[in-house]
Parts: sequence; C-alpha cells; structure tokens
Amino acid sequence: MSERTLAGTLGLDNVDQPVLLKGWVQKRRDLGGLIFIDLRDKSGLVQVVFNPDHSQAALETAEAVRTEYVLEIKGTVVERAADTVNPVMETGKIEVMATELTVLNKAKTPPFLIQEETDVAEDLRLKYRYIDLRRNTLQETFKMRHKTTQAIRDFLNDDGFLEMETPILTKSTPEGARDYLVPSRVHEGEFYALPQSPQLFKQLIMMSGFEKYYQIARCFRDEDLRADRQPEFTQVDIETSFMTSDEIMDMTENMMKHVVKEVKDIDIALPLPRMPYDEAMARFGSDKPDTRFGMELIHVSDVLANSSFKVFKGALDEGGKVCLLNVKGQASNYSRKEIDKLTEFVKVYGAKGLAWLKIEDDEVKGPIAKFLTDEEKDGLVKKAEAGNGDLLLFGADKTDIVYDSLGALRLKLGKELDLIDESKFNFLWITDWPLLEYDEDFERYFAAHHPFTMPVEADMSKLDTEPENVHANAYDLVLNGYELGGGSLRIHRKETQDKMFKVLGFSDEAAEDQFGFLLEALQYGTPPHGGIALGLDRLVMLLAGRSNLRDTILFPKTASASDLLTDAPNTVSDEQLNELSIHINHKE
Amino acid sequence: MSERTLAGTLGLDNVDQPVLLKGWVQKRRDLGGLIFIDLRDKSGLVQVVFNPDHSQAALETAEAVRTEYVLEIKGTVVERAADTVNPVMETGKIEVMATELTVLNKAKTPPFLIQEETDVAEDLRLKYRYIDLRRNTLQETFKMRHKTTQAIRDFLNDDGFLEMETPILTKSTPEGARDYLVPSRVHEGEFYALPQSPQLFKQLIMMSGFEKYYQIARCFRDEDLRADRQPEFTQVDIETSFMTSDEIMDMTENMMKHVVKEVKDIDIALPLPRMPYDEAMARFGSDKPDTRFGMELIHVSDVLANSSFKVFKGALDEGGKVCLLNVKGQASNYSRKEIDKLTEFVKVYGAKGLAWLKIEDDEVKGPIAKFLTDEEKDGLVKKAEAGNGDLLLFGADKTDIVYDSLGALRLKLGKELDLIDESKFNFLWITDWPLLEYDEDFERYFAAHHPFTMPVEADMSKLDTEPENVHANAYDLVLNGYELGGGSLRIHRKETQDKMFKVLGFSDEAAEDQFGFLLEALQYGTPPHGGIALGLDRLVMLLAGRSNLRDTILFPKTASASDLLTDAPNTVSDEQLNELSIHINHKE
Repeated sequence: MSERTLAGTLGLDNVDQPVLLKGWVQKRRDLGGLIFIDLRDKSGLVQVVFNPDHSQAALETAEAVRTEYVLEIKGTVVERAADTVNPVMETGKIEVMATELTVLNKAKTPPFLIQEETDVAEDLRLKYRYIDLRRNTLQETFKMRHKTTQAIRDFLNDDGFLEMETPILTKSTPEGARDYLVPSRVHEGEFYALPQSPQLFKQLIMMSGFEKYYQIARCFRDEDLRADRQPEFTQVDIETSFMTSDEIMDMTENMMKHVVKEVKDIDIALPLPRMPYDEAMARFGSDKPDTRFGMELIHVSDVLANSSFKVFKGALDEGGKVCLLNVKGQASNYSRKEIDKLTEFVKVYGAKGLAWLKIEDDEVKGPIAKFLTDEEKDGLVKKAEAGNGDLLLFGADKTDIVYDSLGALRLKLGKELDLIDESKFNFLWITDWPLLEYDEDFERYFAAHHPFTMPVEADMSKLDTEPENVHANAYDLVLNGYELGGGSLRIHRKETQDKMFKVLGFSDEAAEDQFGFLLEALQYGTPPHGGIALGLDRLVMLLAGRSNLRDTILFPKTASASDLLTDAPNTVSDEQLNELSIHINHKE
Repeated sequence: MSERTLAGTLGLDNVDQPVLLKGWVQKRRDLGGLIFIDLRDKSGLVQVVFNPDHSQAALETAEAVRTEYVLEIKGTVVERAADTVNPVMETGKIEVMATELTVLNKAKTPPFLIQEETDVAEDLRLKYRYIDLRRNTLQETFKMRHKTTQAIRDFLNDDGFLEMETPILTKSTPEGARDYLVPSRVHEGEFYALPQSPQLFKQLIMMSGFEKYYQIARCFRDEDLRADRQPEFTQVDIETSFMTSDEIMDMTENMMKHVVKEVKDIDIALPLPRMPYDEAMARFGSDKPDTRFGMELIHVSDVLANSSFKVFKGALDEGGKVCLLNVKGQASNYSRKEIDKLTEFVKVYGAKGLAWLKIEDDEVKGPIAKFLTDEEKDGLVKKAEAGNGDLLLFGADKTDIVYDSLGALRLKLGKELDLIDESKFNFLWITDWPLLEYDEDFERYFAAHHPFTMPVEADMSKLDTEPENVHANAYDLVLNGYELGGGSLRIHRKETQDKMFKVLGFSDEAAEDQFGFLLEALQYGTPPHGGIALGLDRLVMLLAGRSNLRDTILFPKTASASDLLTDAPNTVSDEQLNELSIHINHKE
C-alpha cells in the first residue's frame, strides 16, 4: 500500500481494503480507551479509529495528536455497526481501523475554529487566510471558480479564439480610473502603469490580424474600495474582428449558457432578453435591473400634472418626474417610524424626502392625502393598480434622483420583503447606451464606457452638434442586478477617433501624447472590431451564491487595499528607493 | 450569403459556391484590364479576381485599393485554368470572382513589407508590432503558444489540479532578484512589489489544504535584460501536497510528453533521463547541458599530474583541473588565427588562455607539445580517443572556470560545426543540487534555488556544520541546453526554516520582518509539499524552433525594458506623484 487514498471517496465498496490516508485532523475524540479522529483532505472527511487491539503504537502516537495536525495513516476500511453509522457524514457508513500513524507535521491550536458558520471577525480570518480557506464552503467556491474559468476557456477554444497575454507593465493613460504606477529604474523619472483593462492591447491584437482573442486578465484600479471592489480583479476579456454587436452578444450568451450549465447544471433560455438603457432606467431606476422581482417604478407625472402639492408641483415645474413604488400588501407592516427609516435611506441618493400613501378601507390615507384631489387619488390608484393594504412610496425630483432613489429603494424592499427568488439566474442585456455623459464639475463630456466606443452609425452626424444625444454601439450584461460586464464595437477609423477625442476635450497634443500609437495604428489597416469584458470575480460570486467578493478571491485585500496575511504594502529599503530615484514626500 | 467564409479554407470543393470574404490586401496586381488581389485573413490567403464582366463597380472600387486595406468581398469560387494554378498557395487551385467590394478601412503604406524573411531592424518592427505580427511565422507562433497552454491546462485539469490566481500586488521580499515596486496611495511611504514568482503564495495554498494547484502566472524581475530575459515573463506554476520529488518529476514529464505530442506530434520517451548536478558539470561544463551532441569534457588532470608545463602545473597545484574538448576532425579547419578567436571567447568566462594540440601525421603537434613528455602525449591521445585530424582544446584553471569556459566553448563549437540535430527534443532532469552557494563578496551563503527549498533528509545534520555539502531536494528540467524550469520539495517544518534563515545570515528580526507570516503559517498544520515552475515563454520558443524570446511574447519589451509601441514607461503628471507622496530625486 504505497498509493494514497482520498478520505472522502471511501464507502462500503472499500470494506476490508487497506488504505493510506494523508490529511488534517478535523476533530479528535477519546472514548472508552479508543481514539477517534475525523481526518480531512481535499476530498472530504473519514473517521479513523485507534484501537489497542489493532495497534498499541498507533494509539499511543494518536494521544499526542491535536486539531490540524497533519497525519499519515495506514489502516483498513471496516463497516460501522448500524448504531454508529453517521448519516450526515458522506463516508459515515464506514470507518478506518488504524494500524500505523505518522505525524507529518504538528499544529498549534488555530486562532479560530474551522467550521462553516462563523462569526469570527473578517480581519482575523484574512490574517490567517490559510486557515479560513480550509473551510468547506471556501474550498467549494474555489473549485467552482476553477470550473467556471475552465468552462469559459473550453467554450472559447472550441469557438476558435486564441488565448493571448497582454503586458502588465504598460503606459499610464489617465483617462479613466486612477492608475497604479511602477517607477522605472532604467528610465529615471518615468513610470509604467498597471493596466485598468487590456483595452488598447486587445484592439492592437485585432490590428495584428488575430481576429479572435481572449484572456482571463488581471486588471488594476487604484480607487477607494467598496465591498464589491478590489484593487486587482480578473476579467474575461474578449475581442473579435468583423463581427456585429448582435453576433458578439449571441456568442457571449451562448458562452454564459455553457458556463451556467457546466457549473450549476441549470439551463438558461436563449436568446437573453434585451432592454434599452432608457427603458431600464424608467422601469427599474437602474442600468442593471434585478428582474427577479417586479415592483417596477410607476410613472404618475401625468396624473399629477396639475397637482397643487408643492413637492410634486415643484418637481414637475423644474422638468423632473413623479414616480411611485407600489409595495403590495405592506401598508400595515410599515409604521410611520419604519417609513422614516426608508426616508433616511432615500436621502443618501439625493431625495429630499419620501412622500407616501396607504390604501386602507377603500380609502387613500396618509399625511399628503389632503393635498390631492379625488380625481388625482383615483388616477394614482388606477395607475398603480393599488388595492387595500398597499403602500405607495413616491419619488418627486429631478429624473436622475427619482430613478436613483426609487431604484435603490426597490432593491432594498425586494430584499427586506423576501421578494427575490434566489434560485433564478436572470441575465439581461442593456443596450442603446448614451455615448457620452456631461460632467458639470469638469464642464466637459466624459465617455460613458470608454473613449474607444463606436457611436451608433445613425447618430454619427450628431457627434459635432448634439453629442449628448449620440448613442453608443455598446451593450452591458446584467445578472441578478449586478453588472457582469460590458462591451461595444470600437472605433476603427482614425477620423472618428480624432473627433471623439475632440468631443472629450483633448487637445491635438494631448491626444497625440497619450494615444498617438493608437491613432497611428488606426491608419494601417484596422479591421472593424469589438468585444466584451466580464468580471470573473463577480460571476463566480453569483454562481456560488455568495455576497462578498472577497470570498471569491484567494488572497483578497481589505477596504484599505492591505493584505493582512503578508502585510503588504510595506516599507522598503532606502537602497531600493535610491535605485529608482524616488523619494517619499511625507504630507504634513 | 451573410455568413463569413475564411479565405484559407477554400478549395475545389467550394467551386461555384458564393462566398463572403473579409480580410486584408496582401498583394494587388493589375493585368490585362483585370485586378488580382491576394486577400489574407487569419486562416490564410486566397486570390480574388476583379473582372469587368462580373462587376464593373467592384473593379472600379478595386482600383483604389492598396496593400493592407481591409476589404469585404462577395463573389463566387471558380476553378483556375490549369496554367494559372499556383502550387505554392494552399488555395492555389481556385480563385474568387468578385461581384461586390466594400472597403472596410483604408491603410497607409506600411513602414515595412509583411513578408517572412525580413531584415528590417527589430526596433522598427517593435514600434509597429501590430504590423509585424501579421507575418505568418508570428501568427503561427502565437497559435502554438495558445495550443501549448491549452495542452498544459488539459493535462493538469484532468489530473485534479485547480487553477488559482495569486496576487500581483504583493509584499517586497528583497531576497532574490530586484523587485518592481508599486507605491501605495493609501499607505503613505509604503510599497507593493510585483511578484518574482508566486512561491510563497503557492506554499500558502498548500497550507490552505488545496493539495494540487497550478497557475499560468505572470512574474516580474527588474534585472538588466539579456536576449533571453524579459521584465515580465510567464511561468507554469505548480504545487502539490503529499507528493515525493519522484512523483512530482513523473507528473511533470508526463505533462511535457502530452504537450510535445499535442503541439508537435512528437513522442517523447519516458522516463526522462536524470543526471546529478556534479555529473552534468563534469561532463558538459554546464548545469543545463545540451545533450543533442557529444564533445563532452575529457578530464586529464591525472594524465598531467606531474606535468612541468606551467599552465597545467599551476592549475593543478592550486587545486584546479585540466580538461579538454576533442574537436573531431577539425584540426585543419582551425588555423592559429581561428584558435585565437576561440581564445578571446573563453576569456569572457575567466579563462586566461586556451592551450591546444592537433593530431596530424600520427603526431601530437602545437605550441605546447614541446612541454609534454611522450608518456603524457600518449596518455592524452588515449584518454581523448584522439586520432589524426583531431583538435584538442584545453581548459586549465580553477574547476569553475574550466567548466564554464569549456562548457560555453562546447556549445559554440557545436553550433559552428553544425553538430546539433535541431529536430531533437532532449529533455533532461538535473538532480542532487547543492542547497547553498557561498558568495565571496557578501561573505555569506545564498540559497542556490530559494530559501524555502528542502535539504535532502540525509544531509539535514550537516546544515550547522558543513552547509556547503548539503544537497537540496531539488530538480531542474532542461530542454536542448535551456533551463525550462525547476522545482523542489519545500521546507514544511518551522525549525528547519528557522535554521535555513540562520545559515543564510538572517537575524531573527529580519526573518520575522520579511517572512514572519510564513514562519507563523508553518506552525498551523503545514503539509509536506513541493512543486515546480516552468518558463512558458522559453518552452514556446523551443517548441516553435525560435531563438529569440521576444518572438514568443505578444508585446515584448526591449533590452532597456521599453515598450516601443506604446512608449512605456513614460512620465506622469505631478498630480499623480503627489497623490502617491513621491518625488523624483534626479541623480547628478
């Protein structure tokens, strides 16, 4: 017996077979002169029994053994007596009678128990990540991550894509998020930047004639982190030549269908639904709507066009909107105090307040009821399809604020009221994006996606005259209310790219300085091309049914971009800094 | 006809079929009122004919078309007349009669011709990399790179390995090569480092209980570059728990067999040969011998033990060696002037000169012959199995210098004399490495591989007393004279790791400061583990039969670590530097 046996694979078929186990002590119990150890390896658990009748030496060694010791055990599989079968353990019908035991390594008592349900502070679990990762849930999540990337690669390889690697040490191009910089030792005073995405390189790959490229690519953004952001993240990066946006979307949804089938054994119906950006905003108050439940925004500006209630009148007079959410049957569950909490919630999104009504005893009630005419009340009830017991929550403000606040409120209530079917995988394409967004602070347009996005052909002439009305040939893929990723056709003609930079406020010099190589490359036979990039970490998070992105990244960083395990970032030696000709300039 | 047809796939089977082609103009010829275009896409080339009888409009559009224009062409496949068949073109038996032509994009005249044999300066080709990459050789190299990684992944996936991603923003640990640093914005004065390899993370993955990990990992070293070095490179990174070094070598060679079969359709015989480090040095003067040809080092110290020739006597008296290469049958091809050139060559490796002899007319001739006794001459001829026409080249110095200089000379002569069978794939394991190397300048030991390498069990007790005689449980894989990569078992016990740091001259504080997390992790149940890392760029280079590493990297950097295409590194704004609290300290 020199071949290792995996603990979790043992069962009644193996009874009387000799085994060689290697793994960790999950648990040790002493009982009636015997020692029982649950041994864990990557495949699962098995119970090992140390019995003086089988081996006194092994029993004695086992006495010193503690949790997380690493052991090598020789023994024989035996069937358990009926009354000792463990029905919750996969291998619970058998156990291993140990004949030999070697301690491969000792272990101190871990700083926390390795168990599924844990309330240990995340910082401690991150510092001891290698212990936390021994938990079954995390083991399974990273198996799923492996399976997901494998399914993606299989699909793309079969479809004729080439996997290619683009540089990590690249050029800083400040348009976009903040770059991580890398000082050059050879070129004093110069810096590389870590890529925010391989965008320009994948376009250059198309210009190189490769036609179908993908990469599971590491990307970097030096931004203040939120729960669903990490300084480095992984995206499935895809680019093709000569394909239309419809063809790229078709390919992508076939890929997602393959992935969900392989990983979850769930069949996704194709084609995936598509929704224009304007419709998504109007119906869900979001450009990444969670369509697993209803409670859509109801537009009631027309009903209230002549309202004398100053909140509604003010919003409409200023060109804004009034919308409402009908929270079906919840009137009695939301007291004034509860509604006050919702008011605080929407204020974060810029709303000044939260008007509300309840339908009770066939009457429209609430503090604002007295400002409404009977006709207005009837109109609202009809439009909202409201009945007794319903709670109506209003947004009345500039359109952006109404959408943002009610969109967020809808999601909050959907979760609170358990309206979301967690078993669903609702994919959705958002299309017909605006090409540009005007920024009041900077007094200029910014690219809604990025400056290389192709305008819709029909809108091309508006680029000079009314840029705010130009649509992009772009598409985002949404899953269960999360943006999985997005893509577009790219500009493949120099004239269009020149014009785009002009609209974005670049001087000729600035465009040349930052993107001269692209502008030059566009002139040497650039094919029409486009692609998509999908967030792998987020995809795995959703497939695994997790809500924390850090659970899908092997060694994640904290909100302050620290690695608590290795203690990165850290200080470096003066010699290292001198070689790079840089100096720390401590702020006051 | 709305489905695209790939140019290179067309043949007699497609005659009379309508096609829709999209691609680049490789060549345009005008002949007798017709226009002929060789259209190129990722699949290959096809000839398209514009004929006024088929479409006057298409012909007229074709007149404006130049090299590298991007075209969309509708037409019909026709068989060529026997006298116009092009036997060197894969699609040479047919051509496409064009009925419609759309120019998708124009192109300026490229800065150089896109042809296989090129003498265009590499700098220009790197600046216009997207044009150079359109060459068929490079297209094929990157297809081969894709196929290679796919074969590696398939093998490892089938073998139960999980592909996992380790961080790129890591902690600087100065032991090893020079780190690339990334200033932290959040933690003023602190830095991340880009990983030189995922070494510590893959060990932490083993400590996390995953048992079988791999990654096609990007690694970074800020070293002065040679022809076969790049600042960022890719390695196939593998780590396992509970496996012996023999098991890891078996697994690796099975993987290499699979790769060479998939990519080159060549069968590699297993097991691969193994050679101890000492033997490799003694026989080939190299720790990565090219075994595709002989001309091994011949040890003649014993023959010359009493030599009065001062070069030989001096070397032996100082504890060195005398070795020779027998360059069979080349005596008459190497004049004194030629040999002087070889002398200059070996001086680079520290040799003071190059003694030589020729066997001609059954006599040992040459300037040093007069210093040798007949007995010594006979001894040399016998040991070298020398005959008429042979040239003997001597190394006599400290052992290191003899090995380095004759090892390099052997390779140079092997190439010059065309002794190498380029069709061979000679894999070789080098085993029994020394654990440590003493550095005279620093007056301390350095790890020959890295400080986490496990000493051979039998040598463990020598670690305190005679560290220079401790062997490592390490193995390097060599292919055709290149080091493909190497691996080892790792230290899994804290006591051993502590001792190792001590031997390397670390104070307790320094060890704790740099590797405290590792020393701590070793105490919480670390399994015995080990692995290997293989250079992917180099592997692809050898499989593709290339000699320049840059040909296997999509967007490589120059010897001064510049990207000539995007012009990275470059200067960044003061605002960017201020945010990072760093300042350029220009050297005088």
